[in-house]
Amino acid sequence: MRSSQYLLSTLKETPSDAEVVSHQLMLRAGMIRKVAAGLYTWTPSGLRVLRKVEKVVREEMQSIDALEILMPMVQPADLWQESGRWDDYGPELLRLKDRHQRDFLLGPTHEEIISELVRKEVSSYKQLPLTLFQIQTKFRDEIRPRFGVMRAREFVMKDAYSFHLTQESLQQSYDQMYAAYCRIFERLGLDYRPVIADTGSIGGNSSHEFHVLASSGEDDIAFSDGSDYAANVEMAEALPPKGERATPAMDKQEHQVKGDELAALLQPLSVEAQQAVKCFLVEASDSVEAEYVLLVVRADHELNSVKAEKLEQVASPFNLVDSYTTHELHNVFLSPVDFSGPIMVDHAAAQLSDFACGAGRNGVWFTGVNWQRDAKITEAVDIRNVIEGDPSPCGQGYLKIARGIEVGHIFQLGKKYSNAMKVGVLSETGKHETLTMGCYGIGVSRIVAAAIEQHHDDRGICWPDNLAPFQAVIIPMNMHKSARVQETAEKLYQQLKDQGVEVLFDDRKERPGVMFSDMELVGIPHQIVVGERNLDEGMVEYQARKAGDKVKLKIEQVASHIKDALS
Amino acid sequence: MRSSQYLLSTLKETPSDAEVVSHQLMLRAGMIRKVAAGLYTWTPSGLRVLRKVEKVVREEMQSIDALEILMPMVQPADLWQESGRWDDYGPELLRLKDRHQRDFLLGPTHEEIISELVRKEVSSYKQLPLTLFQIQTKFRDEIRPRFGVMRAREFVMKDAYSFHLTQESLQQSYDQMYAAYCRIFERLGLDYRPVIADTGSIGGNSSHEFHVLASSGEDDIAFSDGSDYAANVEMAEALPPKGERATPAMDKQEHQVKGDELAALLQPLSVEAQQAVKCFLVEASDSVEAEYVLLVVRADHELNSVKAEKLEQVASPFNLVDSYTTHELHNVFLSPVDFSGPIMVDHAAAQLSDFACGAGRNGVWFTGVNWQRDAKITEAVDIRNVIEGDPSPCGQGYLKIARGIEVGHIFQLGKKYSNAMKVGVLSETGKHETLTMGCYGIGVSRIVAAAIEQHHDDRGICWPDNLAPFQAVIIPMNMHKSARVQETAEKLYQQLKDQGVEVLFDDRKERPGVMFSDMELVGIPHQIVVGERNLDEGMVEYQARKAGDKVKLKIEQVASHIKDALS
Repeated sequence: MRSSQYLLSTLKETPSDAEVVSHQLMLRAGMIRKVAAGLYTWTPSGLRVLRKVEKVVREEMQSIDALEILMPMVQPADLWQESGRWDDYGPELLRLKDRHQRDFLLGPTHEEIISELVRKEVSSYKQLPLTLFQIQTKFRDEIRPRFGVMRAREFVMKDAYSFHLTQESLQQSYDQMYAAYCRIFERLGLDYRPVIADTGSIGGNSSHEFHVLASSGEDDIAFSDGSDYAANVEMAEALPPKGERATPAMDKQEHQVKGDELAALLQPLSVEAQQAVKCFLVEASDSVEAEYVLLVVRADHELNSVKAEKLEQVASPFNLVDSYTTHELHNVFLSPVDFSGPIMVDHAAAQLSDFACGAGRNGVWFTGVNWQRDAKITEAVDIRNVIEGDPSPCGQGYLKIARGIEVGHIFQLGKKYSNAMKVGVLSETGKHETLTMGCYGIGVSRIVAAAIEQHHDDRGICWPDNLAPFQAVIIPMNMHKSARVQETAEKLYQQLKDQGVEVLFDDRKERPGVMFSDMELVGIPHQIVVGERNLDEGMVEYQARKAGDKVKLKIEQVASHIKDALS
Repeated sequence: MRSSQYLLSTLKETPSDAEVVSHQLMLRAGMIRKVAAGLYTWTPSGLRVLRKVEKVVREEMQSIDALEILMPMVQPADLWQESGRWDDYGPELLRLKDRHQRDFLLGPTHEEIISELVRKEVSSYKQLPLTLFQIQTKFRDEIRPRFGVMRAREFVMKDAYSFHLTQESLQQSYDQMYAAYCRIFERLGLDYRPVIADTGSIGGNSSHEFHVLASSGEDDIAFSDGSDYAANVEMAEALPPKGERATPAMDKQEHQVKGDELAALLQPLSVEAQQAVKCFLVEASDSVEAEYVLLVVRADHELNSVKAEKLEQVASPFNLVDSYTTHELHNVFLSPVDFSGPIMVDHAAAQLSDFACGAGRNGVWFTGVNWQRDAKITEAVDIRNVIEGDPSPCGQGYLKIARGIEVGHIFQLGKKYSNAMKVGVLSETGKHETLTMGCYGIGVSRIVAAAIEQHHDDRGICWPDNLAPFQAVIIPMNMHKSARVQETAEKLYQQLKDQGVEVLFDDRKERPGVMFSDMELVGIPHQIVVGERNLDEGMVEYQARKAGDKVKLKIEQVASHIKDALS
């Protein structure tokens, strides 16, 4: 491709509304252009990258015998009413009416459509297991689209769905999909982690998210420095501390304190946060007689509401009681001392002796409090977020915490949709059996942004070979003034094309400085510079975008050098 | 691919709601499944065909240096307000609101989005000409979606847009596109005609439609039996008859007639329709003083309102006056005799002598009427549809008329959008110049249906090699009872796969009859039947789906035989 016939559209300035580096670089390198909030046009060079991601994803789906289909983007409401999601899904679901005032929606996912297909087309156990996938434009009406294609409203997704007679069969397909996802992210050259994820309110059994590690990520990932273990911070188990609780050595003392900020209030007491607890009042479930349950964690830890919601004693959905309005007591003064309902204490807080806590009255705190002597523990439980340095729950190593960008999600749905929509087959014994399902997503367009978050420097994008819009670029210096430069550049361009290299020939009438900075911004991995001076020796200059080292090559060596670098 | 691991989903019965053969066969062969009116899921085998069409279209677009991009399907209303189409476009445009109550639409085409891109990214004449295309899902809210993917609401389209400084440059790209379209339809094995099309109310200069000839087509195409000339019937010129009008030989006579059906009314008068005229009253334009204009065509011809609307004397939009309500005169009795306003007479009607026509009074007709003596001709014009047997307007041969399915449309838009949306660049002389545009569509998903209309027999689809979901199929007879059959079939399957043939191995435990009829329905072009009897001689049976001849082949010949047939 000749750049004079291409639409390059690079920008010198960083657009002011682009917060993360991938968004800035995709705009500056001319890969995308904004049409409206969360809606983008992919330009020629951007689309080339997107298609390369698609290709790797498609190949790996085919390698595990998943069959590609294409479902409509506009979906009828009746199927979503059948599954219950028409009412359950929030305003991210864009609902619309057709000319006959019938209800439709723009598909954010396709569980309903695929369930409808399978219940009509699959009738026998002989047709199972079955995995279907599509690579398609999806729509989610994000309240605040941002970070470019990272959190767009219209985006390209690979969504796959598998159908099974048994949990064992689902687990088998799930494991195959897990392995395929690992191959995909490896082939795309991404530093990623498969992390144990929350199955949340969607229901279902087992779930992993695939995160690309990057400082701009929106999720916190806990991973072990001594094993493959990784989990969403909300999901990572905090192990109970080892050893016995120390014997009480202090008496309980009452203190008048000022303010309602925990840190400011502890300082005059000369108590470290690790030696104090904080309390949360939540609604109790029907299984206990009390109206409220008290949750207690160490003052330097964070309450994990996902974990707390799973406690039998706690009402679901999780409902934190705002003490301002219910008791005229500020929550920093909530206290386990004299609390009559169930007191669920995080393991780390339960390990404390001689600790500080609120007194159940505004403006008063206790020090020297001890469990059993001064306050009861209904049960010691895990209800906090892990922090860096906690022992890994896998038993090996200690946890580190990093930001991650979720680019994939695999999920054992179980029978949520197949029960609601009656998806079943006749089994080998002639019985009607409801199927069990898995679903598996990859954010194809988001991967492009995530890859840039990991592959850039201060001059622009540094594409890995297998994602770059072009593999090589020929940069002739002042070609319009030198027939020799032009001739050599044209010859090299033809040679590389003949060898199957995806090569861009920057034949614009631009100053060399403009060409260099544009090509570094766009991030083409292999650069060939053709200039008068080197031509005197029959040489051109080769530079790898990432490593940066310059090498002189004989003209006849160029093609094989690039081919070697690419293989 | 093994059919036991595939989703075949063939149907024995023809679904009752499928009117045309392609819709019936796409459902029966399991290529598509309906989700809602005009919304379909493409199954694995259907999608394989769709992707093959896409691939040919993409390759030919790239061959003329068109650059592929991807624009959003959801488009903001403001750009359509700028072009004027937000108000002009009918209810086929699906309008919707996002969660913030902002107006959007589902894109039926992308002139506005591409104009917005080009006015921002292209600033210099050096970047021109520029042709951009995408292959994308579109939405048109058809009032009555039908014929399966032929007239669906959601469909896959290739849309291209070109931008130019001059009309000459546009014409050059238009001609290249025309040639690329011809190559596409030829490579897809379609019997097609590029036809001169109406530029209608969209405005613009020149336009061609590409029609696949098929009896189920919704358009009438007139084409010459003596040249390449083809045009939409509405566009084909009707040449004036040669020679002089015959001298009057009869006197004008008045007849009482019964009824208001032309044919029934002419019979008692013993007048052929070719010897009578019919009249239409239409609103006059401001250029004439009269309120109405009378249009006169031969009674066996059809008035062409597209042609009539272009007459200076006729108001635009064309507005036929309903005589029931305006004059209490039935329109079959409208008469050129004593009509005071302009009388525009079709050439063929103007050639008549001694003809019959209405008398301007209900229940009365004249015979023996002659122009000039009994009625004036303001002007003889072309205002009828051509009919089969008319001389071709190109001067060579006579016209034939066939039904066509529109699968492509190329259009010189001129400055309609670039004026409205201010799309311009600096020219070589530093002047700001508004660009001139072309747009070029191909109905990618519709082509799949059109191909089936041309390639089927009473047993199913007969795919050309380059469109078939699989190129070859191996059909083993009672494999589960014969180890020898199984072994040979497996060996051939592996061999063909290794040779790069897209082969389906029908390894289902089905009776041979079921397998044959399924594979003929699906339309796989090359069939290999492996059976005990032929194996005794070391042979298998080869059959071409279309030709139908059976040939015995030695097992070791099969791969090369198929490869030869495919090349």
